[in-house]
Amino acid sequence: MSKLKALVIPSAARLENVCPPDVLDLIKNNFDATFNHTGKEYTTAEQNAMLGDTEVLLTTWGSPALDLAGLNNAPHLKYIGHAAGTVKSRIPFEAFGRGVRVFTAAGRIADSVADWCMAVIMSMLRLLPALDRDMHSGVLWGDDSVKGMELTGMEIGIVSLSTTARALLPMLAPFRCDILAYDPYVSPEEAAKLGVRLGALEDVMSRPVVSVHLPVLPSTKGMITQKLIARVPDGGIFINSSRSVVIDSAALINELSTGRIRAALDVYDTEPLPLDSPLRSMPNVLLTPHVAGATQQGHNSLMRCVVENIINASEGKPTRYEIDPKRWDLLA
Amino acid sequence: MSKLKALVIPSAARLENVCPPDVLDLIKNNFDATFNHTGKEYTTAEQNAMLGDTEVLLTTWGSPALDLAGLNNAPHLKYIGHAAGTVKSRIPFEAFGRGVRVFTAAGRIADSVADWCMAVIMSMLRLLPALDRDMHSGVLWGDDSVKGMELTGMEIGIVSLSTTARALLPMLAPFRCDILAYDPYVSPEEAAKLGVRLGALEDVMSRPVVSVHLPVLPSTKGMITQKLIARVPDGGIFINSSRSVVIDSAALINELSTGRIRAALDVYDTEPLPLDSPLRSMPNVLLTPHVAGATQQGHNSLMRCVVENIINASEGKPTRYEIDPKRWDLLA
Repeated sequence: MSKLKALVIPSAARLENVCPPDVLDLIKNNFDATFNHTGKEYTTAEQNAMLGDTEVLLTTWGSPALDLAGLNNAPHLKYIGHAAGTVKSRIPFEAFGRGVRVFTAAGRIADSVADWCMAVIMSMLRLLPALDRDMHSGVLWGDDSVKGMELTGMEIGIVSLSTTARALLPMLAPFRCDILAYDPYVSPEEAAKLGVRLGALEDVMSRPVVSVHLPVLPSTKGMITQKLIARVPDGGIFINSSRSVVIDSAALINELSTGRIRAALDVYDTEPLPLDSPLRSMPNVLLTPHVAGATQQGHNSLMRCVVENIINASEGKPTRYEIDPKRWDLLA
Repeated sequence: MSKLKALVIPSAARLENVCPPDVLDLIKNNFDATFNHTGKEYTTAEQNAMLGDTEVLLTTWGSPALDLAGLNNAPHLKYIGHAAGTVKSRIPFEAFGRGVRVFTAAGRIADSVADWCMAVIMSMLRLLPALDRDMHSGVLWGDDSVKGMELTGMEIGIVSLSTTARALLPMLAPFRCDILAYDPYVSPEEAAKLGVRLGALEDVMSRPVVSVHLPVLPSTKGMITQKLIARVPDGGIFINSSRSVVIDSAALINELSTGRIRAALDVYDTEPLPLDSPLRSMPNVLLTPHVAGATQQGHNSLMRCVVENIINASEGKPTRYEIDPKRWDLLA
């Protein structure tokens, strides 16, 4: 059997970020692969011109989208592997109609995001940022009357049982938390299997720990309104690792500025977060620069995820991380 | 059956810290209880004078130790409940010979310490203190080349499979870490049941995450030497939630001052940690003021732990958190 013809779109620098040497070997050994030696990223036009006999298209962040003209130029295309997250704005839906199977590393990135969520939940509950800041800035010792909270048994609210939320649930399991989730696309039976109960968004937002995992869809933009943010109880922790656009950011900043609630945020309306953002001077907010999905192990796994699954698919073996066109409208 | 006569030693202020109203009711309903209404802690002499017909002695932090004279003054003593951690310097070993059963909340505090360990491990792996500090101090954005680590699959070293370590292991379980533990009192079979392998202290200290859980014993003082600290790999995270005396603190501070390794510390040679301690100005060290065992839920559980178990013991029911005199020499 001749090897599948693969077009590896990322520049060497981009590729190195998501593809360690052994995965590069995996590509070379399993595919008849053409690499990008130009030292820069291709344009859509350049990509389109090269697609003629391509059967496997491998991309990552910074790679050009595949437009309909590109798809029309690629009559042999069988597999797309995007070694990164969302693929929705990157490929035309028509690809599925032509039998192209699409794999992304979104599921692997979700594991990294879930890890970040666990880290910030536990860190905020135990007051680590405040205690560490105090110890480093000349506060002699802690105040006995101010105690952190253990994660065990906490009431947690989960907004959307997305892939990241589902990666988080097993990490929470040993702590026997009481988890209430809002997700209109999940049945009570499916929720029960995940170990959570479903509830109204208002009730989910009323929990002392609220973690937002919404995909960006027309229906989710601005979904976390001022009224919902006001439901977070005093001292509660609001966590956003999804996207800023699902939140009324002005309302969140207002609420945080009073010190009534706390937050851990990884995503912002404008990134990099402007230096004059009021968030930057709030002691009750833990801030990270959009890294929830970025870890050493994660990035080393991104191209591996899609390449291994394309190889498995080509051999008729079971696969993971494949895009289900039936769920396209709900995808981030 | 007449109620057991209980002497509740802590002042109202101390008691409130470890005994919520429902546990106070539990004491009042189950025991013929005498409370401390003096507004201050008793001295040993005052305690001794009151022990005559006491069958249950309840204490916590700040309560006087029970000395041999006190034990001799308490011929009816059946149960000691210490709503705090270590009891070793607080009661004479002879108590066991007289049939006194001793309960402490050390096992419950261990749960809080394990929670702290999880929080700092995940926080340090994901670089949260550094990223948050940068975002709050005018660094525009993160450097793409500096990525945190996920906990999943990490190689962890555990020094002593103490109660706190055993509380930590189930929390680590979902992350499928490779855990190597040093504990000369644990058999390979028992370690396997806990999901860990046993190794030499040198090898345990060579792991990228090392967590120290040593009890303070004559044999453990200064056990973590300069040579062992040097085994922690570059960028590795050294965690101490036990006691400072088990570490060569000067060597640790030296190693940390080079920035070669990182640490999360809760305990210090002198507490409060002196304001001129070099640790206070190290960006690679997360510091908390001896709070690993102190949480809101934990403190509300301390008196409950010992009271519930004394009630169970008096009714011939199974108990937890009881001191086993055969393990006295290994107790912290």
